[in-house]
Amino acid sequence: MSTYRIERDLIGEKQVPKDAYYGIQTMRARENFPITGYPPHPELIRAFGYVKKAAAMANRDVGVLQTNIADAIMTAADEIIEGKLQDQFIVDAIQGGAGTSFNMNANEVIANRAIEILGGEKGEYLRVSPNTHVNMAQSTNDAFPTAIHIASLRLADGLTTELKELITALKAKEEEFDNVLKMGRTHLQDAVPIRMGQEFGAYRRVLSRDLGRISHSVAHLYEVNMGATAVGTGLNAKPEYIQKVATYLADITGYPLKTAEDLVDATQNTDAYTEVSSALKIMAINLSKMANDLRLMSSGPRTGLNEINLPPRQPGSSIMPGKVNPVMCEVVNQISFQVIGNDHTISLASEAGQLELNVMEPVLVFNLLQSLSILQNGIKVFRQFAIEGLTANIDHCREVVERSVGIITAINPHVGYEVATRIAKEAIQTGRSVREICLERGILSEEELNEILDPKEMTNPGIAGARFIYG
Amino acid sequence: MSTYRIERDLIGEKQVPKDAYYGIQTMRARENFPITGYPPHPELIRAFGYVKKAAAMANRDVGVLQTNIADAIMTAADEIIEGKLQDQFIVDAIQGGAGTSFNMNANEVIANRAIEILGGEKGEYLRVSPNTHVNMAQSTNDAFPTAIHIASLRLADGLTTELKELITALKAKEEEFDNVLKMGRTHLQDAVPIRMGQEFGAYRRVLSRDLGRISHSVAHLYEVNMGATAVGTGLNAKPEYIQKVATYLADITGYPLKTAEDLVDATQNTDAYTEVSSALKIMAINLSKMANDLRLMSSGPRTGLNEINLPPRQPGSSIMPGKVNPVMCEVVNQISFQVIGNDHTISLASEAGQLELNVMEPVLVFNLLQSLSILQNGIKVFRQFAIEGLTANIDHCREVVERSVGIITAINPHVGYEVATRIAKEAIQTGRSVREICLERGILSEEELNEILDPKEMTNPGIAGARFIYG
Amino acid sequence: MSTYRIERDLIGEKQVPKDAYYGIQTMRARENFPITGYPPHPELIRAFGYVKKAAAMANRDVGVLQTNIADAIMTAADEIIEGKLQDQFIVDAIQGGAGTSFNMNANEVIANRAIEILGGEKGEYLRVSPNTHVNMAQSTNDAFPTAIHIASLRLADGLTTELKELITALKAKEEEFDNVLKMGRTHLQDAVPIRMGQEFGAYRRVLSRDLGRISHSVAHLYEVNMGATAVGTGLNAKPEYIQKVATYLADITGYPLKTAEDLVDATQNTDAYTEVSSALKIMAINLSKMANDLRLMSSGPRTGLNEINLPPRQPGSSIMPGKVNPVMCEVVNQISFQVIGNDHTISLASEAGQLELNVMEPVLVFNLLQSLSILQNGIKVFRQFAIEGLTANIDHCREVVERSVGIITAINPHVGYEVATRIAKEAIQTGRSVREICLERGILSEEELNEILDPKEMTNPGIAGARFIYG
Amino acid sequence: MSTYRIERDLIGEKQVPKDAYYGIQTMRARENFPITGYPPHPELIRAFGYVKKAAAMANRDVGVLQTNIADAIMTAADEIIEGKLQDQFIVDAIQGGAGTSFNMNANEVIANRAIEILGGEKGEYLRVSPNTHVNMAQSTNDAFPTAIHIASLRLADGLTTELKELITALKAKEEEFDNVLKMGRTHLQDAVPIRMGQEFGAYRRVLSRDLGRISHSVAHLYEVNMGATAVGTGLNAKPEYIQKVATYLADITGYPLKTAEDLVDATQNTDAYTEVSSALKIMAINLSKMANDLRLMSSGPRTGLNEINLPPRQPGSSIMPGKVNPVMCEVVNQISFQVIGNDHTISLASEAGQLELNVMEPVLVFNLLQSLSILQNGIKVFRQFAIEGLTANIDHCREVVERSVGIITAINPHVGYEVATRIAKEAIQTGRSVREICLERGILSEEELNEILDPKEMTNPGIAGARFIYG
Repeated sequence: MSTYRIERDLIGEKQVPKDAYYGIQTMRARENFPITGYPPHPELIRAFGYVKKAAAMANRDVGVLQTNIADAIMTAADEIIEGKLQDQFIVDAIQGGAGTSFNMNANEVIANRAIEILGGEKGEYLRVSPNTHVNMAQSTNDAFPTAIHIASLRLADGLTTELKELITALKAKEEEFDNVLKMGRTHLQDAVPIRMGQEFGAYRRVLSRDLGRISHSVAHLYEVNMGATAVGTGLNAKPEYIQKVATYLADITGYPLKTAEDLVDATQNTDAYTEVSSALKIMAINLSKMANDLRLMSSGPRTGLNEINLPPRQPGSSIMPGKVNPVMCEVVNQISFQVIGNDHTISLASEAGQLELNVMEPVLVFNLLQSLSILQNGIKVFRQFAIEGLTANIDHCREVVERSVGIITAINPHVGYEVATRIAKEAIQTGRSVREICLERGILSEEELNEILDPKEMTNPGIAGARFIYG
Repeated sequence: MSTYRIERDLIGEKQVPKDAYYGIQTMRARENFPITGYPPHPELIRAFGYVKKAAAMANRDVGVLQTNIADAIMTAADEIIEGKLQDQFIVDAIQGGAGTSFNMNANEVIANRAIEILGGEKGEYLRVSPNTHVNMAQSTNDAFPTAIHIASLRLADGLTTELKELITALKAKEEEFDNVLKMGRTHLQDAVPIRMGQEFGAYRRVLSRDLGRISHSVAHLYEVNMGATAVGTGLNAKPEYIQKVATYLADITGYPLKTAEDLVDATQNTDAYTEVSSALKIMAINLSKMANDLRLMSSGPRTGLNEINLPPRQPGSSIMPGKVNPVMCEVVNQISFQVIGNDHTISLASEAGQLELNVMEPVLVFNLLQSLSILQNGIKVFRQFAIEGLTANIDHCREVVERSVGIITAINPHVGYEVATRIAKEAIQTGRSVREICLERGILSEEELNEILDPKEMTNPGIAGARFIYG
Repeated sequence: MSTYRIERDLIGEKQVPKDAYYGIQTMRARENFPITGYPPHPELIRAFGYVKKAAAMANRDVGVLQTNIADAIMTAADEIIEGKLQDQFIVDAIQGGAGTSFNMNANEVIANRAIEILGGEKGEYLRVSPNTHVNMAQSTNDAFPTAIHIASLRLADGLTTELKELITALKAKEEEFDNVLKMGRTHLQDAVPIRMGQEFGAYRRVLSRDLGRISHSVAHLYEVNMGATAVGTGLNAKPEYIQKVATYLADITGYPLKTAEDLVDATQNTDAYTEVSSALKIMAINLSKMANDLRLMSSGPRTGLNEINLPPRQPGSSIMPGKVNPVMCEVVNQISFQVIGNDHTISLASEAGQLELNVMEPVLVFNLLQSLSILQNGIKVFRQFAIEGLTANIDHCREVVERSVGIITAINPHVGYEVATRIAKEAIQTGRSVREICLERGILSEEELNEILDPKEMTNPGIAGARFIYG
Repeated sequence: MSTYRIERDLIGEKQVPKDAYYGIQTMRARENFPITGYPPHPELIRAFGYVKKAAAMANRDVGVLQTNIADAIMTAADEIIEGKLQDQFIVDAIQGGAGTSFNMNANEVIANRAIEILGGEKGEYLRVSPNTHVNMAQSTNDAFPTAIHIASLRLADGLTTELKELITALKAKEEEFDNVLKMGRTHLQDAVPIRMGQEFGAYRRVLSRDLGRISHSVAHLYEVNMGATAVGTGLNAKPEYIQKVATYLADITGYPLKTAEDLVDATQNTDAYTEVSSALKIMAINLSKMANDLRLMSSGPRTGLNEINLPPRQPGSSIMPGKVNPVMCEVVNQISFQVIGNDHTISLASEAGQLELNVMEPVLVFNLLQSLSILQNGIKVFRQFAIEGLTANIDHCREVVERSVGIITAINPHVGYEVATRIAKEAIQTGRSVREICLERGILSEEELNEILDPKEMTNPGIAGARFIYG
């Protein structure tokens, strides 16, 4: 008995494995695009389930799709939403054709599954046709972007959830370290005192803004172009269908999806994606800066700054016994570099749109969904394994402040920058303390110095001490 | 008589041209950084005028700066705001030191000008000191970012004004071309009919979103970190001063500037800039896509698509007589490439912040201000010289629709995708029209075809004709 | 019976699945870095087989590793080289720790397999220790980069093989189309005639240079840093070992590998990778330009340039029957965008090296190996499915030349640019031919025009015709 | 008396300032492209002098250009080569039109200057025409790329000269610091000892490779496409002319310039530029890493690593007296970021070539020449002001090695990684020294430890000590 069935399309015919839910067009795509070896992102597959289900419901309602066919399509789509049949999605993540192969893979799998549900055998497309029925009133050019939106929204949900957790963890450290006095550094050079809690507050705040940026940009994905069909004009899509399909999509996904104001615009422009990717890139930059800071502060243990301790997560070296490395920070740096590079690819793909369509969407969505995923994954372990267990070397931090020259800055308002410069220069050259020199020169009294040089006071706005030379 | 005066600083002494308003630190920077040959952006210079004026006012009010000195500083700062003394700003656009050289150049010029105003001679810093008085209660680390914000806001104003004009011009074309029927193209292949007005509507809409994105991101620049001083803790800046300086800045610039919620955060993080740059980059991508489209549509005159005519602006070739090129579109592409590359540099600079400060701000601001400027300049001439005089080749566009095969798509709902595919294939292979074949095969009547194949109808949502095979 | 064994390391102890060849450090990495879900590239795994085998041979020879242990390690390494045990490499492609987890995964798998070979049970590390024996005289910091070099070399071999095939296919088209006269275009505007063979010759030539660039850059990978150990100083690696390990590596891989001249340099600098990636990026740019050209030339069929036909590979649309798209070109564009974005990530990772090591190598190598792989895959199908079956629309191309105005350029040397401009302008405005106008005005005789305006002649250097006004 | 003359072109007529050497087309470009405000790079202007001179000589030789006109053109061109008339080049650095405006600006200035030399008045183009005579047998499409090549070659000369000086300075430091023992660091964590001379040797070596890469890539610029004319077919350029113009160009520039093998290829492909830019980008990455290292090593003075001292170049802070920052390193970082961003713009411009020409060359060359210039400028001051006066804190470096735990690595071969791990862990937890613990436990004798733990020995390959547990 044959293990193949024969299918036909515009190009000709082809053997399809008998038990495959995908069909001839999926096989062609498989043959044409053996590029990355990566299948479509699981959330993209699931999103096609939502799209095809909503379309079937709307087509049924407007009377162009028979109820029994619609029902079978809906059932098949539900299975995909539940995560079934994932192994039937075999087209490559990077592919020519603006996503037609993703869409046809979904159309074929759903058609064949629907045929089975209706009691037929796979390949009997007169019962349920991938194009005529499953893709009814749709084009790849609206179904695929709509699926991208849904997949991105779901991944963004996961990301923002983790991001909030990280912000909470940073907030806890901000409070825990509120009294940890340390040397502030600019240009990697000793500057003036700061509290470690202030530093973690800065990390928390910038990530809170990132959360805002991501949420703001993601909200633009609520507008979908279902009903646009081929070029956005809505050819073959009844107005009632367009209205209904958006409503159904919103219902079944739980997102406030709605029809884009202008479908021609929404079909050819990809700024909704570049906007999300930009928000992710900005966060990646901020995360990388923070990871760099933590690696600097934890440098040592004996020959670095040694201000903080990151929880040891794994032996740091295959040759150096006892070494522990800031691996969770390093992975955050690398995720950031990946996201920044991905944003570049996304930008190139976005710019390459032409006239009514951007055919480069597959590589765009591959990178966008990857960025969303790896940020979520990375932020989670970063919080769990680096932030939550992070401790401060309180005594060492304070000692370093005591012996620094940077506190001279607080003398400025009392003696002027020029005199202060001379004191600082002498302190650095002789190794003596600022306090000692001021006293010796009779510049300020011991009492005044106690007030002016209190490091903790220096970490808040204000001019300590009362006597001003200038004023 | 000597043409030099001698000045001294931490490093030593140096001859300064007697008539120079700048001083020793500016000269050191000039020597250290002969990099691009470009001076600071004029708007950055002006912005320092605002910053120094507001600081003097606030310092005077809180009683640490004598009124006569404050007045002289304010007068000098006003001159800079008016555009005077620009030739005294001689430090390079790219420089080490986190902008200290920009700030000291401003401090020195203002100090010397104030000294003159007070009746002294340049270099008599006991009267007005660049550091002690002009820079009072400030650090480069708050004065420079605040100046960047103000300069960016002013340039963004110019940009958004021009952007709105372009949007208006596109709106006019959208209306003018509302009835120009043409072939829509996806993958550069004939797709289905569209109206040229719909295309210009899409351009208008995406740029309107860009306007929104830019305005949204620019609004974050209203938060300034004046009062942060060295590391954001506000050392040497009285709380009353911090409050007053923001109020004065808002007053004199006309922007709703206010003190950032957390000055440590605002001093070390540069996400406000990456956010603006990202918004510019997204617009650059969209502009480049639009410019590409217009170049495609105007390709020809005899051997291209020839759908539109761009106003001839200059002879296109030094060797090919009569040639006219889409130069205004090409310059938009190039500006876009520059802005995208600038965003890359800005991202690198932003990621390189360390601990309490980002010392890479000079290169960041050089690129940010350049992006803002060249986009404003480019959008203006693009509108004037490409969009406003653009015309459509209406007859040619319609002819092309008539002979296309793409209209077959409208047949789908009536005969199914599979049958339609066979008709299309035959039409392409034989050169015959879709209508002819449908009629010959008795698939649809002439009347039905007239209704279904009306190209104008195809440019709006809906299924033309009443008889459905499927339903 | 327990399904776990207990293993211990610096951090503590952990349950390891009893039948796992990997051990505790692999498990820690698995827990720490659930980032991309992608395992190490198969060629990277294989490359570790080569590295560990060569190290065991060299350590045996210099007398620090017992022969029976060395033999067992070599046998286990051979299995990995043959592609066995791939499922035991479970650490994520993106990871913190500079590749320590890749290296320890390899060390543990090989140690446990060697223990089995020696008759022991997995986990009996006193027999064969992952660190002491398998990693003997090595650090991640030399073993990992050496593995990257080998993996890259193997992938580059595959890539250059495919690239040569593509060049050959382009050469065939260059010859096939040598007589196909068509309009040359600059700025997408009609320029002067060219032969299609010349265009394919240009594609062939630029790719030949890319082949040269890639080969040139790849050759720098022959220098490996085995023997560098932790920071390049070679601590714990005897000079004889260093010499022998390179020789063995060369023997078993077949590449002319040799010890880098300076191991400190070779351990901290990653320019060998950025150099390869740059060569790939340059090719990606060239490929994308070529793919764009082919998409332009094949645009239509009825409303575009329609100069060439790409082999139809799959139905182009889920809604538009009969549509065929240039999908193989589109996938080349997308691969190019991915490679360019990857180069960006690689650049960021390379710049982030610090002092004696670049800890960002995992993300760097992930992107580098991906670029090599997808270019090889993409170039193969591009040749097979787009180039080899590409045909020219000879008649249409010639017709277009005949009616163009661009041939006016050949008149220049005879009448001067200024007069030629007037003729061209009239031709364009009236729709008349250049020939007609020249004749009417008595500017040139019919005979002269025949000679001057011969389009074929115009595609070679020279000034047709004898009479010059200027000279 | 009128201060204007009237000029005419394809588009119409225009007033040109009477004393201007440029003409109508330059004025149109000025009006069309008020983008950056930057004029063409001085070396690009000079390069046009070379191109136009060589073309005039070749045209004269092949008998199409009268000797007196040729002579006048040559004289005018010589003036431009000498740096005269630079203020007549007023077209913007970023412009539409593939450089036609640069070329026409050159053609017009030279024509008008030649007219003067021949005794005429500016604007009398019947004497010497910008197009017919100065541009004879040329197109922008060959003259402009040829000028880019020459300008790039000259700038690359300056760059490589400075690069060699920097390499020499690093070599001197490598030798000076050969005995400075310090702690090597990986992951910013204490690793094993290294000599500072080894570190500077690594910097020297990677820059030497950069020198090789730049020189290698620049050599490809020797092939120029003069004679290609409009699309590379050489229409209107006699073969003898093509041969002669290259020879003359080589003669007068001093570079071994020659005609590209295939002019169609050389006219449309821009890989020669992306190749140079890639080489610059790779160096920028390496320079930035080095600058980062130096900033790390000089961090302090009291609260950082404090291993080296950079020469103080300017006061580091407007508020913190006595502060000195690593400004020369910081400017190198920023130059690097600019060059990396420029490479991005160049890549975008290169990819945007279409068919016979890349019209985006103006923005490409703007970025390429800027990268070459700022690298030259930056490398010079970096050497002078940071490297040559750099000193080491020898005692501090050695002290840090003594108290580090990292030297435990040398114990590995004697006791195995597992035992060494336990010793290291105890040392870190108790603050005791490795030596002490080994002695106390009787693991190694004092004599053995003296041999094994000699830090200087550790900086060279080998296993110190004789007794191996393993072997």
